[in-house]
Amino acid sequence: MAPKGKSIYVASFSIIVNLLFCLCAFKLYVEGEWKLSWSRRAAEEAEHVAAIPCSGHGRAYLDGLTLDGKETVCECNSCYGGPDCSLFLTGCAANADGGDPFFLEPFWMQHAANSAIAVAGWHRMSYSYPDKSYVSAELENHIRTVHAIVGNAVTEGRYIVFGAGSTHLLNAALYALSSDNFNSSPASVLVSVPYYKLYQTQAELFRSLDFKFEGDAALFQNISDDTANVIEYVTSPNNPDGQLKKAVFQGPNAKAIYDRVYYWPHFTAIPAPADDDLMIFSISKFTGHAGTRFGWAVVKDKSVYQRMETYLELSSFGVSRDSQLRAMKLMNVVLETRGKEIFEFGFDNLKKRWEKLSNTLHLSNRFSLQKIAPQYCTYFQKIRGPSPAYAWVKCEREEDKDCYGVLQQEANVYGRRGSLFGAEDRYVRLALIRSEDDFDILLQRLNHLVLAERNSKIIISSLVGGQYVS
Amino acid sequence: MAPKGKSIYVASFSIIVNLLFCLCAFKLYVEGEWKLSWSRRAAEEAEHVAAIPCSGHGRAYLDGLTLDGKETVCECNSCYGGPDCSLFLTGCAANADGGDPFFLEPFWMQHAANSAIAVAGWHRMSYSYPDKSYVSAELENHIRTVHAIVGNAVTEGRYIVFGAGSTHLLNAALYALSSDNFNSSPASVLVSVPYYKLYQTQAELFRSLDFKFEGDAALFQNISDDTANVIEYVTSPNNPDGQLKKAVFQGPNAKAIYDRVYYWPHFTAIPAPADDDLMIFSISKFTGHAGTRFGWAVVKDKSVYQRMETYLELSSFGVSRDSQLRAMKLMNVVLETRGKEIFEFGFDNLKKRWEKLSNTLHLSNRFSLQKIAPQYCTYFQKIRGPSPAYAWVKCEREEDKDCYGVLQQEANVYGRRGSLFGAEDRYVRLALIRSEDDFDILLQRLNHLVLAERNSKIIISSLVGGQYVS
Repeated sequence: MAPKGKSIYVASFSIIVNLLFCLCAFKLYVEGEWKLSWSRRAAEEAEHVAAIPCSGHGRAYLDGLTLDGKETVCECNSCYGGPDCSLFLTGCAANADGGDPFFLEPFWMQHAANSAIAVAGWHRMSYSYPDKSYVSAELENHIRTVHAIVGNAVTEGRYIVFGAGSTHLLNAALYALSSDNFNSSPASVLVSVPYYKLYQTQAELFRSLDFKFEGDAALFQNISDDTANVIEYVTSPNNPDGQLKKAVFQGPNAKAIYDRVYYWPHFTAIPAPADDDLMIFSISKFTGHAGTRFGWAVVKDKSVYQRMETYLELSSFGVSRDSQLRAMKLMNVVLETRGKEIFEFGFDNLKKRWEKLSNTLHLSNRFSLQKIAPQYCTYFQKIRGPSPAYAWVKCEREEDKDCYGVLQQEANVYGRRGSLFGAEDRYVRLALIRSEDDFDILLQRLNHLVLAERNSKIIISSLVGGQYVS
Repeated sequence: MAPKGKSIYVASFSIIVNLLFCLCAFKLYVEGEWKLSWSRRAAEEAEHVAAIPCSGHGRAYLDGLTLDGKETVCECNSCYGGPDCSLFLTGCAANADGGDPFFLEPFWMQHAANSAIAVAGWHRMSYSYPDKSYVSAELENHIRTVHAIVGNAVTEGRYIVFGAGSTHLLNAALYALSSDNFNSSPASVLVSVPYYKLYQTQAELFRSLDFKFEGDAALFQNISDDTANVIEYVTSPNNPDGQLKKAVFQGPNAKAIYDRVYYWPHFTAIPAPADDDLMIFSISKFTGHAGTRFGWAVVKDKSVYQRMETYLELSSFGVSRDSQLRAMKLMNVVLETRGKEIFEFGFDNLKKRWEKLSNTLHLSNRFSLQKIAPQYCTYFQKIRGPSPAYAWVKCEREEDKDCYGVLQQEANVYGRRGSLFGAEDRYVRLALIRSEDDFDILLQRLNHLVLAERNSKIIISSLVGGQYVS
């Protein structure tokens, strides 16, 4: 019996040793690199929602609507429906209207681990940062570094102010540039056609004693003298047509607000760092986070900077600290590769879209696209072709005065009509920065339209030739 | 040899079984409840920063400044310094000025797991929610539920708009109420003394054609007739003095903006649900998250609501989606106990602070406090005493015309001077909602001052009595 008893001892011993070993290893595993406490539940919630597939044609969000207070509902891309976004809505209109920058969404999905943030319940409850400002000093440093690396703006010796997107900063800039107007008459707010409509609606909404929207800069130039106080919006690259622009008005009474939100290598060559007196940037078109509402202005003059700060303080006590934290994290990811990954991703994506669209419309005599010349880009250190955020399409036929209507009725595509940019309705803007789904449907619809045009041409030419050749 | 060989087999078998068992359990542990992927790094970063103790007199934040790009720097409470905030700065001035609602910070630290959020890099990149609005439908539902539970506002059949804190909503409300003014003269913007200065600075900053700040409602009432267009700010409970107030102006040409940001059980009895035409709330004073910049307005009239929406769209395309997500999570925690935990925490804390301050100032003839009568609270279902956000202190001595100066010079305490509320400088506002550290130092300093007053009285009365009794 002795050997049998011994074998039991050996077996028991081995069990105990193994258990201890496993427990020990397990404890190390959990306590070492992996142990989490209060943040685990939030992390699990985020991963659970992110794991809902929505068939690749939509996404679920932490704050999405829920079914019976449990399952989060998928939010589908345009033209997709059903509970899991798997249903293609054949007859739906293709959305090429809004500027949602979803073209960068796959980039952030590929960089999930680096770009996530976990926010504690007590994160930054105060109105201000330790220096009593509403501006995160770390984020300001990040912004200066980004501009230095990209080479798209001079920031040395310049002041930086934060706003809730470029929209908020446009208000602040208009206020700051008009409020030192000692002249009794309000400053004239001007812009070159075609222009982003918000400048006008915003300036008119505020009904200020200090400024008045007067519209087209070229028209105003003909009727005004040099003494008029002028504030000119300059969008460069321009929305809608992607051209790099300069202010029309110069001189001591002329001030410009340079809207530089598209001045990133995704959309344009960067010929040199911009060095305008007042430049506005935002993350909406840089990292693609329109919903975060974060932008900044780079300002040369101290008193203009101070007036903008006053405006931003009195209109909202600065920008949400949560937005600032998010912006900082996203910029961290950009900086990890000195912008290489995100700008190559963005540029490649938009260049391909532009080429596909150009190839399609090239087959048509009915539609034309804006011309953007290849140009040397100091960031990519090469001559690069166009990759604009928007196509500025012109209907060339005399009778197609309403280009928006033509595309809507004949291709089931809706863009944004030319008159919303102060131009003729013979033009329409098509957004190229939306999701892959949106772009694919847009392209497919335009292909059909152009094909129909070619087919009808063949039939007509056959008819004119007097012979049926089909 | 057979038994020995057998025992080796048994031992080997047991080792293998045990290893398999352990691996299996281990795998389940990791894969079951605990397995995290992309969100782990963010969660670890957040916990690492939160674990920096800062001696209990400060805190470290994810976006705080870093030393050599590595260690996050502690941000110390007022009067504390050193790298870990352990150094008490003896001679420093006690800060009782700003309205940072840090009194609720310990609550959120106690509810760390429930209140944390993890945000994916691709969270809500769009300008809008699926319904094309800038408003999270889930958050709007949360807000309606909160008001129903607290009983502090009627929301049934009312519209809700979101803004970047009450500050942003005040702009929007002023615009919305003045822009339907078909009268040629601008609306008169009025307020009762003492009032929150921002109303004035904001209205004056915008220099609108449609409204003009005219100051004290009581004075204006004497000089105006009934036909004047009036927009009246009503802060209830009032900042600075905590009184529940009503509009002075009534009638067809009078409109009121009810600033209800302090109408929560922390600060006041809730006698009945507020049912004003336009009411503004914010999370700054409800959950204590001033930095998140999130507030909402409850609006009766559809056209006023639509004009506010237009303003909020054109001024910033709505509120940061990150702020909305955060607000939703915080409200979830509040709702878990139907508000019981947070309101009891807030009320108990502020009631104790008020009692301590009252006891101290009661010993003095030199200073007095505002009177707030006990009142029945429908939320707590009992009569409750005062727990205001601010003490509105009056210097009673004829010669103490500058009460702010008195407290600064004699107690090394700085509050906010009465003239900043349109009142006499004989008054000063002391914030009671700041951190425990700030309140403790404030109380200590005031105790010293009052003790010195009593001692000097004893000496004087002894001198007057002609005898040295000490």
